[in-house]
Amino acid sequence: MKPGNTHELADIIAAVRPPRDTLMAQALARLDNLTKPRGSLGRLEEIAVRIACIAGRIDPQLANKVVFTMAADHGVADENVSLYPKAVTEQMVYNFLRGGAAVNVLARHAGARVVVVDMGVAADIADPGGTLAIRKIAYGTASMTKGPAMTRDEAIRAIRAGFEVVAEEHARRPIDIVALGDMGIANTTASSAIVSCITALPPEETTGRGTGIDDERLAWKIGEIETALDINRPDPADPIDVLAKVGGFEIGGLAGAVICAAKSGVPVVIDGFITAAAALIAVELCPAAKGYLFASHNSVEKGHLAALNWMGIEPLFDLEMRLGEGTGACLGIGIIEAAVKLMNEMATFESAGVSRETPSES
Amino acid sequence: MKPGNTHELADIIAAVRPPRDTLMAQALARLDNLTKPRGSLGRLEEIAVRIACIAGRIDPQLANKVVFTMAADHGVADENVSLYPKAVTEQMVYNFLRGGAAVNVLARHAGARVVVVDMGVAADIADPGGTLAIRKIAYGTASMTKGPAMTRDEAIRAIRAGFEVVAEEHARRPIDIVALGDMGIANTTASSAIVSCITALPPEETTGRGTGIDDERLAWKIGEIETALDINRPDPADPIDVLAKVGGFEIGGLAGAVICAAKSGVPVVIDGFITAAAALIAVELCPAAKGYLFASHNSVEKGHLAALNWMGIEPLFDLEMRLGEGTGACLGIGIIEAAVKLMNEMATFESAGVSRETPSES
Repeated sequence: MKPGNTHELADIIAAVRPPRDTLMAQALARLDNLTKPRGSLGRLEEIAVRIACIAGRIDPQLANKVVFTMAADHGVADENVSLYPKAVTEQMVYNFLRGGAAVNVLARHAGARVVVVDMGVAADIADPGGTLAIRKIAYGTASMTKGPAMTRDEAIRAIRAGFEVVAEEHARRPIDIVALGDMGIANTTASSAIVSCITALPPEETTGRGTGIDDERLAWKIGEIETALDINRPDPADPIDVLAKVGGFEIGGLAGAVICAAKSGVPVVIDGFITAAAALIAVELCPAAKGYLFASHNSVEKGHLAALNWMGIEPLFDLEMRLGEGTGACLGIGIIEAAVKLMNEMATFESAGVSRETPSES
Repeated sequence: MKPGNTHELADIIAAVRPPRDTLMAQALARLDNLTKPRGSLGRLEEIAVRIACIAGRIDPQLANKVVFTMAADHGVADENVSLYPKAVTEQMVYNFLRGGAAVNVLARHAGARVVVVDMGVAADIADPGGTLAIRKIAYGTASMTKGPAMTRDEAIRAIRAGFEVVAEEHARRPIDIVALGDMGIANTTASSAIVSCITALPPEETTGRGTGIDDERLAWKIGEIETALDINRPDPADPIDVLAKVGGFEIGGLAGAVICAAKSGVPVVIDGFITAAAALIAVELCPAAKGYLFASHNSVEKGHLAALNWMGIEPLFDLEMRLGEGTGACLGIGIIEAAVKLMNEMATFESAGVSRETPSES
């Protein structure tokens, strides 16, 4: 079967089911029995209940935590939209493989493992250690300001490749929580175009400073996105068309990763703007995947919140980060794991001999 | 020398110095050399710089992390201001000692140790394991709605006791980061009174639902706080008077802990509303202590943000928690440690062979 077969992807998507809520009442009752005022752990309680429902057990364990950091190059990087040269994508992949990037530090802090995926870096990565997952669709996309970033076939192959890289890791050892990260110079430009197309917000409301461009370059970047949308006319009702015309290979891979996590019944933590744009494509393709998504932080990129609002997902925190790679998602894992441990490890009123609340009239 | 001696406390306070900023330029330069766009780690970068300045080294280590959870009873608990009976304070101290409370779970998650302190529980705690620090000032305060919660001498002794319990742990093994937590049925009532007195905000703007009281009991609670402030007339310019008249023994102990951490050059992470009220007393007594404070979360109790705003401290996150004990502070340790590890462990542009940003005109 051809890798870019639409029917095959449609079959995968049709097989995704929303998380079952059969354990919800039991999880809520468990939380209300723990030695704390009812609801006093706030959003940590919601997280614990959702993880229990997804995992299908009242005592979920987050032993195998994997960050998938997907990298690719973007033709639009040649259009002066970023502070950094395109070569930085390749250089950062080496940094990930050597463990020196921010995501490596934060993954270690969270007890997670980083799987680096080459979805389409514009160079062959020498990987003597062999830890890089090479799923290269092409050596970078074409510039979306001149025509489609990739073909429809490439878009489908990118989604399938991201799906498979997660599926293979999960088959090797079941993953308890997936976190997503990205690397690709100019990929905030692609993400703004995706979010503008799907949400119908104008590019000026979805476009930020990326790595830190000034006002002049920001205006230029917005203009380039407007051009790309004008030239390509992606169909907002067809997420594969949007990905093909104004997306990126790592964005497609990340969308596939979301769908695979959902199909496998594994919670998936998104990171910043790029992973949110990828999740948006995944959820538009496969609405049943939404229930598996956890948004970690709200980044400085304003398109990020636009994408989260469109999906109806609330971020857990805002530390004014704008790095990507999976850095915010790693911090998110720390909070989600805290929630799960509270449900698993706290004493109950009975076991600790603590009095329950007294009625208001007493 | 008498334990409650004001001059002795004044001498301690006079010895506290704000953190030195001699390392600031070096820490900022270090961060700008790491493989990430400048400033892209947001508030994590500010945290890393502050910790480096406090620790007096560019590579601070957070090896010894200690949560001080201080417990005491409140006479005002008899005035129907809480959902829980007073006995829960004692019961929860046993829960802390057995490791079953939320703060124990989250301290383990953060790699921190919990030191439980009896500052004035209305019962003798049987502690065969001997891990409880017993600094009992009295068997609970008097009801502040009838007169002062404690004497001025007791207030000074509570601050001194909290100072000493931290000083002794620090002498045994140097502490790298202190986190604070509280336990005491009705202590949100005391905290609202403290925050209202010092900030001059009316009690309705500093009083929340505590463990979860309904509208009727909330109105009653606000009335009790108004009565306490009317009867006692604490002097907002005299934090010891405020503590004595409407405070609590654990709040005094926590204020002393803040002052000890500051004097010892150790960062101190506050938790929810009660620790914020304690920090407010500490900072009013000893403004130099402010530079050592980190606010972890913003809790549901509205007086919490009022206290933080008064001190000019911004919380790191808001998960709608309202439990106390040090739970939010433990999550705060996780974020602060992440920031420190990023500064210590990330590769530099040079070491990783990553290109720096290119000038705008390129």
